[in-house]
Amino acid sequence: MNYCSNCGARVSLRIPSGDDRPRHVCDACHMVHYQNPKLVVGCVPEWDGRVLLCRRAIRPRLGFWTLPAGFMENGETMEQAAVREAMEESNARLKIEAPFALFDIPRISQVYLMFRARLLEPGCSPGFESLEVGLFHEREIPWNDIAFPSIERTLALYFEDRRAGRFEMHVECVRRRPGEQPGSRPGVPP
Amino acid sequence: MNYCSNCGARVSLRIPSGDDRPRHVCDACHMVHYQNPKLVVGCVPEWDGRVLLCRRAIRPRLGFWTLPAGFMENGETMEQAAVREAMEESNARLKIEAPFALFDIPRISQVYLMFRARLLEPGCSPGFESLEVGLFHEREIPWNDIAFPSIERTLALYFEDRRAGRFEMHVECVRRRPGEQPGSRPGVPP
Repeated sequence: MNYCSNCGARVSLRIPSGDDRPRHVCDACHMVHYQNPKLVVGCVPEWDGRVLLCRRAIRPRLGFWTLPAGFMENGETMEQAAVREAMEESNARLKIEAPFALFDIPRISQVYLMFRARLLEPGCSPGFESLEVGLFHEREIPWNDIAFPSIERTLALYFEDRRAGRFEMHVECVRRRPGEQPGSRPGVPP
Repeated sequence: MNYCSNCGARVSLRIPSGDDRPRHVCDACHMVHYQNPKLVVGCVPEWDGRVLLCRRAIRPRLGFWTLPAGFMENGETMEQAAVREAMEESNARLKIEAPFALFDIPRISQVYLMFRARLLEPGCSPGFESLEVGLFHEREIPWNDIAFPSIERTLALYFEDRRAGRFEMHVECVRRRPGEQPGSRPGVPP
C-alpha cells in the first residue's frame, strides 16, 4: 500500500496513537487503513462415496488438484460462498451439510472454513478456473498433486472421520509441508 | 474507495473481465482492489459459573455490555486473537477451550467466531476500550443492554447448552434485532 484509498495522498507505515502495531496511515487525511485476514470458504462434495476434485486452471498451483473453495465475498454467507465456489469451479449443484474444518494459516493471513456437502446430481464439468473435474474414491486421490496443504489436510481428516463413522469439527493451524521452502512454488505436475 | 492504493490514480467501480461483480479497479495501473468480509474473534470467558462481560468505552454502542471480541489481525491465529482481545479489553488471562459459535452477518460483511474459555484467575479490570468489566451469573446478565445481536445470541446459546449439559458448535446467520431499523443506533443506556 503506497497511497490513501480515501484521498490519494501518500501513506506511511506507523503505529497510530492508542494502537500497538504498525498500520498504513494517510499523511494528509490521517485515515488508518487496517488489513485483516481473509476467509477462504469451500467444501468436500461427496457423491456415492466419491469426492469431487478440480484441477486448477489458474495460478498459483496451476495444474494441481483442489477442492472447490475461494475467497468469501462481501454480503454473502459462508454457506452461500461454498455453494457459489462449487458452481464456479465445477458447475456442481450441492447441498451443504455441516462445517467440518476451520484452519488458521497465519503465515499468509488466511482462515479456511470447509463444509461437508452432498452433490445433488453426479454431473459436473470444469468452470473457467478448472482444467478438469472428477469424482475420486479415497484410493484414487492424487495425493502428490494436491494444490495446498490446507486441502490435503481437509481430505485426510475427511477420510479419517468417514472410516471412523463420525464427522467432527476440526480446528487446526496448518503449516507449510515438510520440505516446502518459504516462497517456493513446486512446478506444474506432469 | 476513491484512489488506487498502489499508484494513487482514480479508481472506478466496474466488473473486471472474467469476473461477475463490480470491483474498484484502477484507471491507470488496472489493479483490482478486492474487498472481503472481516473476521471478528472473541470468547465467552467463564469463572466459577460466572461469565465475563465488558462495558464498551468506544463507539459503536458505547456504554453497552459485550463479550471480549474484535477484528482478527494479520499473522495471528484465531485462538491468539481471542486471547489478545480478552487481555486488551479486560486484562483477563484465560485458556481457550473450543470454538462454540460461528455466525454470518452478511448485512455488514462480518463473520464472528466465538470460543468457550476458562479464566485462569478471577482478576480482571477495564482495558482502554472498556468502562468497566465484571463477572455475571446467568440471572444477572443485562440482557437489555447487550451491545450487539451476535453477542446476545452467543450468550443465549451458551447458557442453553450449559443447562443441557453439553456444548455444541453453532453455525447461524445473525439478523438485525426485531424493531431495529437499518442504520439506527439506540442511545447509550443509563
